Amino acid sequence: MQVSVILLAAGQGTRMNSDLPKVLHAVAAAPLLHHALATAQSLEPSRIVVVTGHGGEAVAAAALAWSDAVETVVQDPQLGTAHAVEQAAPLLANAQGDAIVLYADTPLIREATLRAMLDARERHAVVILGFHAKDPGRYGRLITQGDDLRAIREFKDATPEERKITLCNSGVVCADMQTLLSLVAEVGNANAAGEYYLTDIVELARARGLSAGVVLCDEAETLGVNTRAQLAEAEAAFQSRARADALENGVTLTAPETVFFALDTYIGRDAVIGPNVIFGPGVTIESGAEIKAFCHLEGCHISRGATVGPFARLRPGAELAEDVHVGNFVEVKNAILGEGVKVGHLTYLGDADIGDFTNIGAGTVTCNYDGVMKHRTTIGKRAFIGSDTMLVAPVTVGDDAFTASGSVITEDVPAEAVAIGRARQVTKPGLATRMFDRLRAEKAKGR
Amino acid sequence: MQVSVILLAAGQGTRMNSDLPKVLHAVAAAPLLHHALATAQSLEPSRIVVVTGHGGEAVAAAALAWSDAVETVVQDPQLGTAHAVEQAAPLLANAQGDAIVLYADTPLIREATLRAMLDARERHAVVILGFHAKDPGRYGRLITQGDDLRAIREFKDATPEERKITLCNSGVVCADMQTLLSLVAEVGNANAAGEYYLTDIVELARARGLSAGVVLCDEAETLGVNTRAQLAEAEAAFQSRARADALENGVTLTAPETVFFALDTYIGRDAVIGPNVIFGPGVTIESGAEIKAFCHLEGCHISRGATVGPFARLRPGAELAEDVHVGNFVEVKNAILGEGVKVGHLTYLGDADIGDFTNIGAGTVTCNYDGVMKHRTTIGKRAFIGSDTMLVAPVTVGDDAFTASGSVITEDVPAEAVAIGRARQVTKPGLATRMFDRLRAEKAKGR
Amino acid sequence: MQVSVILLAAGQGTRMNSDLPKVLHAVAAAPLLHHALATAQSLEPSRIVVVTGHGGEAVAAAALAWSDAVETVVQDPQLGTAHAVEQAAPLLANAQGDAIVLYADTPLIREATLRAMLDARERHAVVILGFHAKDPGRYGRLITQGDDLRAIREFKDATPEERKITLCNSGVVCADMQTLLSLVAEVGNANAAGEYYLTDIVELARARGLSAGVVLCDEAETLGVNTRAQLAEAEAAFQSRARADALENGVTLTAPETVFFALDTYIGRDAVIGPNVIFGPGVTIESGAEIKAFCHLEGCHISRGATVGPFARLRPGAELAEDVHVGNFVEVKNAILGEGVKVGHLTYLGDADIGDFTNIGAGTVTCNYDGVMKHRTTIGKRAFIGSDTMLVAPVTVGDDAFTASGSVITEDVPAEAVAIGRARQVTKPGLATRMFDRLRAEKAKGR
Repeated sequence: MQVSVILLAAGQGTRMNSDLPKVLHAVAAAPLLHHALATAQSLEPSRIVVVTGHGGEAVAAAALAWSDAVETVVQDPQLGTAHAVEQAAPLLANAQGDAIVLYADTPLIREATLRAMLDARERHAVVILGFHAKDPGRYGRLITQGDDLRAIREFKDATPEERKITLCNSGVVCADMQTLLSLVAEVGNANAAGEYYLTDIVELARARGLSAGVVLCDEAETLGVNTRAQLAEAEAAFQSRARADALENGVTLTAPETVFFALDTYIGRDAVIGPNVIFGPGVTIESGAEIKAFCHLEGCHISRGATVGPFARLRPGAELAEDVHVGNFVEVKNAILGEGVKVGHLTYLGDADIGDFTNIGAGTVTCNYDGVMKHRTTIGKRAFIGSDTMLVAPVTVGDDAFTASGSVITEDVPAEAVAIGRARQVTKPGLATRMFDRLRAEKAKGR
Repeated sequence: MQVSVILLAAGQGTRMNSDLPKVLHAVAAAPLLHHALATAQSLEPSRIVVVTGHGGEAVAAAALAWSDAVETVVQDPQLGTAHAVEQAAPLLANAQGDAIVLYADTPLIREATLRAMLDARERHAVVILGFHAKDPGRYGRLITQGDDLRAIREFKDATPEERKITLCNSGVVCADMQTLLSLVAEVGNANAAGEYYLTDIVELARARGLSAGVVLCDEAETLGVNTRAQLAEAEAAFQSRARADALENGVTLTAPETVFFALDTYIGRDAVIGPNVIFGPGVTIESGAEIKAFCHLEGCHISRGATVGPFARLRPGAELAEDVHVGNFVEVKNAILGEGVKVGHLTYLGDADIGDFTNIGAGTVTCNYDGVMKHRTTIGKRAFIGSDTMLVAPVTVGDDAFTASGSVITEDVPAEAVAIGRARQVTKPGLATRMFDRLRAEKAKGR
Repeated sequence: MQVSVILLAAGQGTRMNSDLPKVLHAVAAAPLLHHALATAQSLEPSRIVVVTGHGGEAVAAAALAWSDAVETVVQDPQLGTAHAVEQAAPLLANAQGDAIVLYADTPLIREATLRAMLDARERHAVVILGFHAKDPGRYGRLITQGDDLRAIREFKDATPEERKITLCNSGVVCADMQTLLSLVAEVGNANAAGEYYLTDIVELARARGLSAGVVLCDEAETLGVNTRAQLAEAEAAFQSRARADALENGVTLTAPETVFFALDTYIGRDAVIGPNVIFGPGVTIESGAEIKAFCHLEGCHISRGATVGPFARLRPGAELAEDVHVGNFVEVKNAILGEGVKVGHLTYLGDADIGDFTNIGAGTVTCNYDGVMKHRTTIGKRAFIGSDTMLVAPVTVGDDAFTASGSVITEDVPAEAVAIGRARQVTKPGLATRMFDRLRAEKAKGR
């Protein structure tokens, strides 16, 4: 059975108190929108239509950045959730199979939950996702009889008896696409807010003699982000899940509560992650690698046996082969480090290729920027780059070559050669004492 | 109505197990004493008198460091809280209006709570701050009738019935100043400890036919610091408040529980603060700036559009103009960075002025100390400082100038000039192989 | 009374999903095995016998690394806990006094608990460690009458009434050694699993007319590690204890929940530890030292008055004398820093001796590795090492000497001398503008 997803992403998010559209605020280093898209994608849908509104251009751009197969449509003005779905109707006029309506500000819905909704379509024309709320407050209540959903009652319309119900409406809907679109077309706005509510389709479906049902999920999945505090809460919930998954998969996290994953972090079995490690997007870590405390990793690949940190920063394009060692106060960006490369201290490797078993001394810098363009540094295998070597790119150092510490390398170094670019030491006996005496005298006079 | 504050800061804090006077231990990078002074100051009082005792000189100095308008008086010996207030009496003989008695080891009382006490003075001669204790333990109990406070009963004197009362005494008192002083003068020490208790003024006031009342606050506000564990608890409570306030004000905190604020941190709307960021005193961050993970900031100003970190340290006097970028393993101290300055990696900028749009290469150091005195480095606009440039201060680099990587700059560089201070590269073919062969042979012999 | 410990360390730990034997997974920077050994050692036992099984060689090696007085024996195949104890019998045939059976995957048992078991031996031939379980689940239940232990009932054999008992069996046993060994020899394997259970000795003892008793401990002490999640839980429990102990001992921890101790960390009174500090093995910190935020310390000694960090890494062999200052982005390894030494920024000191009151400039590196061997750098007292000095070891700099910033020091520098190893600055007026014009033109052409 085919399925398509309509993703509502038009909300203003006034309570975020922000210039950024709400659904572009990030959890796990990805916009809320991408979390919802990832969940949608897990169903392998035929179509995904994102309905944008506030900040529509930026939201549409973010949707297309995620995948150019996503379609977008603008809702303007914004007259409610049914109205939002209706904006997608022209695009979906010929869509077959089921539709699921998701919300871009609700990042924690699980794939299994949506699959349970699709399964429930065998029994019901319209399936609503419900949850038992700890504090039901002003949520809409689900009025059920057995498996059957009789009505969704808005809080303000509910009787005191109905308000005691804790089964609440998440807003997520699953129905046959064309049935959904025809129901939505019938929704009216005769209510206090003058809005078209998607929830009204339950009543309309039942009026047609169609059956409506409820699938339950954990309340935690339905967390919607309307404030920065809820954004932080969603981040915490995501991290909590990701940490438990990592432990389950055989990753050691010394202090799980201090490790922050991105939406797409992949870590292999028997990898060890110390306290205070932060993953940005695009990190893969193979089995048995070790990331020590205080590391910040984005867009990098770390092979088995590699050790990183403490205090290392790996930026996009850092590729560490097996048994590489990256030590403290080292930054690697857009650089490929061959097997067994060691770069222990205080180094910047940017736009570089480093051959197997090469040793990079402390204080080394690949000078990749000439003020106008970036250039690449290439170093061979088994080379020894002395401490404080400046590699002025574009430049190549051959296999088994050696650069003397403190050298500025501006010309290529052939294999097996030594390159020196530094002055000879001159020592002046007694000068330090005379110099400091003079400086102290000047200081005294200065007072 | 005028108000004056008497701040009791004489306690020894034996249970801190410390050589430092208790009220000088820090929460949110400020001594407990300063928290109490900040709360006192929020009432815009005519006078603040700090009563010192243990470690009196250091405490008085800290009080004066906070504001030289604060007055201090010594309590020696220390014979109880009423005795402490009495020491302030000579200074306050002519003070008009209300008095509030606060405690320097109780950092979490809110301004609104004290204002409620001042308001309650319309109805009562003496106002006591009370709270409902979760575990009342050995706190003094407040015996009330409606709004009226009949007595403060010390735990040891309380009947079993009275011990069931959960309304407890925080010790904070508000009364007309001259009434307070005259009541305090009557307090006796006929008790087991032979001390003069401030709480006795309630009974004395009622004996005079004066009315006493209670204002309630959250128990959390009354947390007193007597142990390091309570100090850590006060820190956690302060941080929890500060984090919630920041979220409320439209600041994004990815992981609020990992961000530590100082008493005076100011952060604008739509700023983004990553995990593990620590603010020392004196930080202001404008709207829309971003502080990435693992940053440590003190005494600095960060303008809109600036990005800092990860792994950056900004020390007192760091001023970042709009769109500045400070990257990883960079320290900035007493330095002004103009608009759009980029300093990406492994750099120390101390005692420096950097013009707009200048680029600072990796490994650059302002050599600001000659062993006796500190000197200043001045760099113009749009300059390009090559990687590993040593700027030996005092030194000036002009607008649009360029320093070659690896250079030691000891003389001023005019605008538009190139300065080079490094040796030419010499390359010796085959030498690396011969050299390593020799070293390995030596090592083998050495065994 | 003598005591010997039999430590069971043979378990496979399938649920760890790891190639590493379970008892070698780390808590507080030490294998679980070492935690159990440290607890055993606290009793000053005559003998410690470790029974290994899965990963036996690695486990035995780790046990001997902890102390070569530990004896090890292999259990192969593994037929239950009684069978494991029996493997130790030949080694202990002549052992006098009491025996305690501990588990290497149970790192949180306290010394006081074991001493209470030894004391209880005055009243009972066999003493079992029990605990009241919050959720007794499938634990074995202890059937008691007063102080007397009547039986240990496996969950599957328990009546519904017995399953309501919350007093559970931890597995830890104390008995006279020879009695224990003779009881163990009688244990049979007529059960579903065909295993020899140590718990059966209670019944066997009572059949001989011997008395069995129970000593209680906190459930938290009995936490056994079977999964990575439990490993993280054990880490959290250890850290929670260590933090409370430190606060109790007069150490200030600004944010205790962010500080990670090793098994053997020692910190003196009135030391101040900022947020996000991580201790590896072998750290001692004297009274009054300060470790600022974001530090990573292993195998080092820090004397009173020293300040470290933020962002400092001290590695094994770092010895900081009084009043040393180690600042940000500084790594110290196998180096002795004399009184008052200052090393403020971006420096690597490895294999070095630094004399009192010497100042090390930013960007300094001890070039300790020549590609084959490591060498030592020696610096005298009151020396001034200019920024970006490369000290090519082996090399010595004398007292009161000075190195110019940017110098590469390859020869010894006598006391009071100045050493310079850098090129003179050459300045080329107008060249920067011409150069950038050319680069921009090239870039434009390149498009």
